[in-house]
Amino acid sequence: MKRIAVCPGSFDPITYGHLDIIERASKVFDEIYISVLRNSSKEGLFTPDERVDMIEEVTKHLGNVKVRQFNGLLIEFCHQVGAGAIVRGLRAVSDFEYEMQLTSMNRKLDSDIETIYMMTNNNYSFISSSIVKEVAKYGGKIEDVVPPHVANLLEEKFNAR
Amino acid sequence: MKRIAVCPGSFDPITYGHLDIIERASKVFDEIYISVLRNSSKEGLFTPDERVDMIEEVTKHLGNVKVRQFNGLLIEFCHQVGAGAIVRGLRAVSDFEYEMQLTSMNRKLDSDIETIYMMTNNNYSFISSSIVKEVAKYGGKIEDVVPPHVANLLEEKFNAR
Amino acid sequence: MKRIAVCPGSFDPITYGHLDIIERASKVFDEIYISVLRNSSKEGLFTPDERVDMIEEVTKHLGNVKVRQFNGLLIEFCHQVGAGAIVRGLRAVSDFEYEMQLTSMNRKLDSDIETIYMMTNNNYSFISSSIVKEVAKYGGKIEDVVPPHVANLLEEKFNAR
Amino acid sequence: MKRIAVCPGSFDPITYGHLDIIERASKVFDEIYISVLRNSSKEGLFTPDERVDMIEEVTKHLGNVKVRQFNGLLIEFCHQVGAGAIVRGLRAVSDFEYEMQLTSMNRKLDSDIETIYMMTNNNYSFISSSIVKEVAKYGGKIEDVVPPHVANLLEEKFNAR
Amino acid sequence: MKRIAVCPGSFDPITYGHLDIIERASKVFDEIYISVLRNSSKEGLFTPDERVDMIEEVTKHLGNVKVRQFNGLLIEFCHQVGAGAIVRGLRAVSDFEYEMQLTSMNRKLDSDIETIYMMTNNNYSFISSSIVKEVAKYGGKIEDVVPPHVANLLEEKFNAR
Amino acid sequence: MKRIAVCPGSFDPITYGHLDIIERASKVFDEIYISVLRNSSKEGLFTPDERVDMIEEVTKHLGNVKVRQFNGLLIEFCHQVGAGAIVRGLRAVSDFEYEMQLTSMNRKLDSDIETIYMMTNNNYSFISSSIVKEVAKYGGKIEDVVPPHVANLLEEKFNAR
Repeated sequence: MKRIAVCPGSFDPITYGHLDIIERASKVFDEIYISVLRNSSKEGLFTPDERVDMIEEVTKHLGNVKVRQFNGLLIEFCHQVGAGAIVRGLRAVSDFEYEMQLTSMNRKLDSDIETIYMMTNNNYSFISSSIVKEVAKYGGKIEDVVPPHVANLLEEKFNAR
Repeated sequence: MKRIAVCPGSFDPITYGHLDIIERASKVFDEIYISVLRNSSKEGLFTPDERVDMIEEVTKHLGNVKVRQFNGLLIEFCHQVGAGAIVRGLRAVSDFEYEMQLTSMNRKLDSDIETIYMMTNNNYSFISSSIVKEVAKYGGKIEDVVPPHVANLLEEKFNAR
Repeated sequence: MKRIAVCPGSFDPITYGHLDIIERASKVFDEIYISVLRNSSKEGLFTPDERVDMIEEVTKHLGNVKVRQFNGLLIEFCHQVGAGAIVRGLRAVSDFEYEMQLTSMNRKLDSDIETIYMMTNNNYSFISSSIVKEVAKYGGKIEDVVPPHVANLLEEKFNAR
Repeated sequence: MKRIAVCPGSFDPITYGHLDIIERASKVFDEIYISVLRNSSKEGLFTPDERVDMIEEVTKHLGNVKVRQFNGLLIEFCHQVGAGAIVRGLRAVSDFEYEMQLTSMNRKLDSDIETIYMMTNNNYSFISSSIVKEVAKYGGKIEDVVPPHVANLLEEKFNAR
Repeated sequence: MKRIAVCPGSFDPITYGHLDIIERASKVFDEIYISVLRNSSKEGLFTPDERVDMIEEVTKHLGNVKVRQFNGLLIEFCHQVGAGAIVRGLRAVSDFEYEMQLTSMNRKLDSDIETIYMMTNNNYSFISSSIVKEVAKYGGKIEDVVPPHVANLLEEKFNAR
Repeated sequence: MKRIAVCPGSFDPITYGHLDIIERASKVFDEIYISVLRNSSKEGLFTPDERVDMIEEVTKHLGNVKVRQFNGLLIEFCHQVGAGAIVRGLRAVSDFEYEMQLTSMNRKLDSDIETIYMMTNNNYSFISSSIVKEVAKYGGKIEDVVPPHVANLLEEKFNAR
């Protein structure tokens, strides 16, 4: 039986922090589905299509990772792809409590799907997509926090404005 | 002398978590006023009138609970109804600090009104109104987290959209 | 029906932080029992008898407060004195989680006894009995953090050593 | 390739909280080794041998769980049993930071062994072995927090004193 | 060599909490630049110009404090004014984690500029600009939390609406 | 006027985390006194004399750092060496609250001495002296977390046992 897990997120854009968790998860599970949440109420810097392309590009060295868009209940997405687990990164205490809300609710929806947490590498533990965008917007150095491909895309976005 | 307490909140919608605190408060105090905050800047899923009706319905088994709308300083509302205490539910650490801000400010406004905290039953400690709406929006199961009457109202709201 | 509450603690020694909570509780409830925990495994600076005397002295201005020693399950003590509630002070996040453990366990033992939290006045929110003892031991100024009677007793203790 | 994980702990005694995590881990991994830490500096209520017996008894319904004593570096134990992952339960924020210390140190010792966190069922999230012992010591009800076999052993221990 | 530090913030409006940190910083450093962040995406109650005027007024008793507007990367502002340190106030745990994000990112941008934290006086530790505005909006008493000059400006703003 | 600061701690042993803070402090202040707390109630792995020698060795590249033993109130030590500030490292939320207790108490003892916090480099943020000793005791790799000189001393200590 294949062990399949889902890594959900906004990934607007994907950072080295996200990538670190995805790489760890890809070693523990046989197959990983990255689920890009299309949030209808909040518009992102990158469109969902751009995010999927970007993630496929920076995860292509991992043989067992697929990228999908999703809109709805995460538990439904798990059913669609046959996943038995959800993998999430934990960075900080504030994450922790929001995560406990989600885990608790997801268990009420389907108690057979386990949520699993992995801790981000210390170097990336204080990176967030929003802080990366803030720095990129003003031309700050972001090579240490996002892959080169993403750094280029960020530069293009802000120059085009 | 009657011991009167106020339970403030948005209640958009009321959950089993809120109800748990209201029931506990109704045993410790002689009379409870549930104060539904009308927030002018943020529109809710339910109108303030709908929320009042909904709360009256699900608290009617408690003999000493009244429901009111309110807009302004909570301390003023306490004065209006003759309450000497504010009751709040504590679920998580992140609540805790925001609550300390409110308590501290309210004490500066009127040091005679005490704020009292009660902890939600574990089963409901990770429920929030916003996560309930998110699940209901996509047709997820919410019977475990809101009373049947509220579940029906949520279903109607989202079907009508 | 009289509303009786229990305020448990080690009170080794009682500080202005404890006193602040006791005074607040004495306004919300008709009668307060301060329960001094006799901890067999950890010896205190003051004996349980000394602590009871000290607390009686500094709470004598409150008409509805009684002081008792106790050893065992707090819920049993509540039954003995007819209390329907336990009052605890909340100072910080680290308190909060330990308190949730206690509340959760006490609810499993007797779901009819409610635990109620009140927040300490900001001025006293970072005082603990152990830090007071540390300062007193080296002759530091403690008038701002404990009542004069307790300050004298601390001075005597450390001079006698 | 078999996916093997280690669940470390003191288990003095094992609670329903621990058992909840072990059951979840046994679904995600092919084989689970429960590693009972023999702590030379702190004597437990139960001897390491008693703990191993007790855990074997309450996990015998799970086909893929083995119980071992261990003293030393957890990473060494992982190497001995061929485990690629460590599974830990997360209950509260205070756990979280201590866990980040351990994970961080273990990664420095062997970056190939992943630490994975699972959240305890809400009902057990505020149970700890020490609070269970405290309640059992005074004859309080513990059936909701430990398996019947463990409840009996606790009763025997405290009666024998 | 002059030791110059920057105190950044929105200051919409400045509170006694902010002032407390600025006064402490002005004793530790030779020169302080208060940097008022012009946030293009979020409109404030006071314009950046009004905030600069207000801060100059309430810090005029401190001889070594200058006030500037800024929009961009804080590290750039430090370079412009020759500052080697950033001073921030710490009030609560939730601040703490956001601050660690900023510090971590700023170190990646320029490792020579140190971020330094000071704790707000307890009396002001639970004050925030947003709670002050909420209270002022409804005519609540704010003399204890902002300087008289700021209280007057708040009153004018809300009366003019 | 020279700006002098004190860095207090147990340093049993000093880690790269401590060293990181000391190096940062030595850039912000003119002179740093490292104050090694002699704790009478808790015996360390290294004697206070050994700790002073060890710290002098690993800080000798910094021209403005002096190491002293101390026993008593930190504020007294500040007066003795003419320091106007105390520098502490902040690693995690749990540190944070204990630190607020100390800062608050020290301010009551002498409001002219400021406590200043700096955040440890991410790489060292989850290192503590006790976890280092635990790893060294079982022969684990500690080169990443303590300077070579300290690693040798730890090895000698545990081999001599």
